[in-house]
Amino acid sequence: MKASIIVIGNEILSGESIDTNSAFIAKSLETLGIPVVKKYIIADEKGEIIKTVDQAFEDAGIIISTGGLGPTIDDITKKTLAAYFRTKLKFNQSVYTHIENMFSQRNTSLREANIRQAELPESAEIFINAWGTASGMLFTNEKGILISLPGVPYEMKGLMSKDVLPYLKNKYPGQVLISRNIKTSGISESLLSEKITDIIEKLPEYISIAFLPSPGQVKLRLTAKGEGSASLTKELDRICEKIENRISDSIYAFGDSSLEAEIGQIMRASGVKLSTAESCTGGYLAHLITSIAGSSDYYKGSVVAYDNNIKISELGVPEHIIEKYGAVSQACVELMATNIRKKFTSDYGIATSGIAGPGGGSPEKPTGTVWVAIASEKEVISEIFRIHLPRKEHIHRTSIMALTMLRKILLLNQTPEKINK
Amino acid sequence: MKASIIVIGNEILSGESIDTNSAFIAKSLETLGIPVVKKYIIADEKGEIIKTVDQAFEDAGIIISTGGLGPTIDDITKKTLAAYFRTKLKFNQSVYTHIENMFSQRNTSLREANIRQAELPESAEIFINAWGTASGMLFTNEKGILISLPGVPYEMKGLMSKDVLPYLKNKYPGQVLISRNIKTSGISESLLSEKITDIIEKLPEYISIAFLPSPGQVKLRLTAKGEGSASLTKELDRICEKIENRISDSIYAFGDSSLEAEIGQIMRASGVKLSTAESCTGGYLAHLITSIAGSSDYYKGSVVAYDNNIKISELGVPEHIIEKYGAVSQACVELMATNIRKKFTSDYGIATSGIAGPGGGSPEKPTGTVWVAIASEKEVISEIFRIHLPRKEHIHRTSIMALTMLRKILLLNQTPEKINK
Repeated sequence: MKASIIVIGNEILSGESIDTNSAFIAKSLETLGIPVVKKYIIADEKGEIIKTVDQAFEDAGIIISTGGLGPTIDDITKKTLAAYFRTKLKFNQSVYTHIENMFSQRNTSLREANIRQAELPESAEIFINAWGTASGMLFTNEKGILISLPGVPYEMKGLMSKDVLPYLKNKYPGQVLISRNIKTSGISESLLSEKITDIIEKLPEYISIAFLPSPGQVKLRLTAKGEGSASLTKELDRICEKIENRISDSIYAFGDSSLEAEIGQIMRASGVKLSTAESCTGGYLAHLITSIAGSSDYYKGSVVAYDNNIKISELGVPEHIIEKYGAVSQACVELMATNIRKKFTSDYGIATSGIAGPGGGSPEKPTGTVWVAIASEKEVISEIFRIHLPRKEHIHRTSIMALTMLRKILLLNQTPEKINK
Repeated sequence: MKASIIVIGNEILSGESIDTNSAFIAKSLETLGIPVVKKYIIADEKGEIIKTVDQAFEDAGIIISTGGLGPTIDDITKKTLAAYFRTKLKFNQSVYTHIENMFSQRNTSLREANIRQAELPESAEIFINAWGTASGMLFTNEKGILISLPGVPYEMKGLMSKDVLPYLKNKYPGQVLISRNIKTSGISESLLSEKITDIIEKLPEYISIAFLPSPGQVKLRLTAKGEGSASLTKELDRICEKIENRISDSIYAFGDSSLEAEIGQIMRASGVKLSTAESCTGGYLAHLITSIAGSSDYYKGSVVAYDNNIKISELGVPEHIIEKYGAVSQACVELMATNIRKKFTSDYGIATSGIAGPGGGSPEKPTGTVWVAIASEKEVISEIFRIHLPRKEHIHRTSIMALTMLRKILLLNQTPEKINK
């Protein structure tokens, strides 16, 4: 059994919004061994919706669509699908009660447009949306099933987890598709590829590999398709181990964990505390760290010293250091790291200072230059990077490089036996 | 002339990566009046690529594909398209020289896989990629043209701007498609919709409207299609003005600007300085502000006080305030805002303190509760929000609400005539 995804929305088609829903849906379906074979992004147009549903049923017996279920006039998915599946809209009392409750909880009055959301296709199975007013709908015909979900990401996610996945799991127990992620940071895609070329070339036909780069990181994804889950798992484990032996220094996780989550686990386990002093990353490093729920257990906070005077007054960098070496210098960044560590009484301090661009560079310090320092009780380690990326990606990659350095230092300090690894 | 986009990549299909390229391409094409009628996301598979190119040519004479041009073994787009367009790969000396130069600048040695990237389809027009090693390729046949670009976003963007758009502009001077954005914050999609329902219902057939929500914001997008640019512009302007009269309080920009960029412009123009003290937003507010190039002109920095002790030691919140009212309280957040303003010698101070979740809530202060305060020389204004969103979206929406509050205060303080507006 295979699936196709149809994302409905002029805003996605025109590029005003980014589609993240189809990624979530595909990953969810993969856990059931249902591969997504194609995704379509189309306009909020009756003819286009109907044509694409026909196309999608050619390749797959399961279609999941998102979008076009909102309360506003441009949302026509519900009506169009009702016509396609030859059924009518009918007032649904349970959905109406749910919508009424939502509004009374929020102390806002029910609007006409929201009341219309209780009118639903008669022959469809309805999934009540606990997070919003647009219900999920399951249509069936001789070609397969179509599940229509709202486009608001957390509403779609809620319905997928609570209703759609349990339904599909029950209806299509089946084939096996197993994946493994190997997450690396601080190594380039081409160097990584070269280090494991021979392993890749000898992969059996039923196992595929993908290189997924993002600023500062490359994720390797191995996917095996077949009948017996035991033999696939065994073969995947064997290959992962071979790869690990080759590039263990660059791997920070197997699975879906992020670098910031991994660092959090190490710090929580060893009871150490972290603080940061950011210049060029401007709060993004703090944001990555605090995006992990529970990070207050090990993260004390940050001084974002965007103005050089703040580096002087809050981070104790002497004025003459900035005058002599500049704010983007080893001397400055090491002092920032050392002083934030002390000021926030933490075990580790990270500091960043660089030129994210587009302006601000000079011949000696071109745009892209960045210093990162990490201070601990016993030492300060600093490194210079030259990152030729646009501003946003520069900020992102610098933050990842800083976390990569921190992780290595944490591991060295906490498990001495790993030093010679 | 219409376009379709084909995104090639197992990682996008499986949901491991998010496609942002097709959004950029669609928006770029729109500036030339070329609408995107459909997007396809497909696997790195020869058969699928060929089938989809055929499908896409049914609806559009221009196809833009991204992805699958990397140096690694899973990248098969170049070979497949060469076969589809009945041409062979041939060594290209200028591309080779460019790749060689890139590697010598980075002080890294050329790898075998990169050398193969200089082998390119003989009949295709080649666009040299100044940002990477995968060239852009332009194929032509009797159905239209296909332009294949690399999947790395900044490489694709560079090639689109430097080569693809000038080429298309020259080849297809033409029809008119004009858009207007109306960007709002601090108002819900359904309330917004209700306020302008009658305007929407009376839109002429050649003008469409979309509501594009993101945490704390709704963008309205009006699009007009037709022959004469002057009459479309006039009609769009008339409708925008009507909408503006109805919801002017909630509008922060027309066009593509962001809330943080607009605030930056206001602050730069009036020479005022800003600092922030963040608890629950954990650096994200600072990140939004510093994502604007040149923000150091008006932004001094932030104290991310994730640990309550930092609120006490760095932000001067008395311990008994936190004990009595909690860190998520009006008293605490107002002190944070007042004190960061003074400490960082700035004109405005913003503070956030809330429970982003998933844990940490209590019956009196449920998860989602958040206080935002803004301090200026003459006053402190604070507001409580109850944001029932997942952690990431909570952080995002809180930051947007804080910026929305700041913008209103900036406008009131700086243009007294607007007070009664």
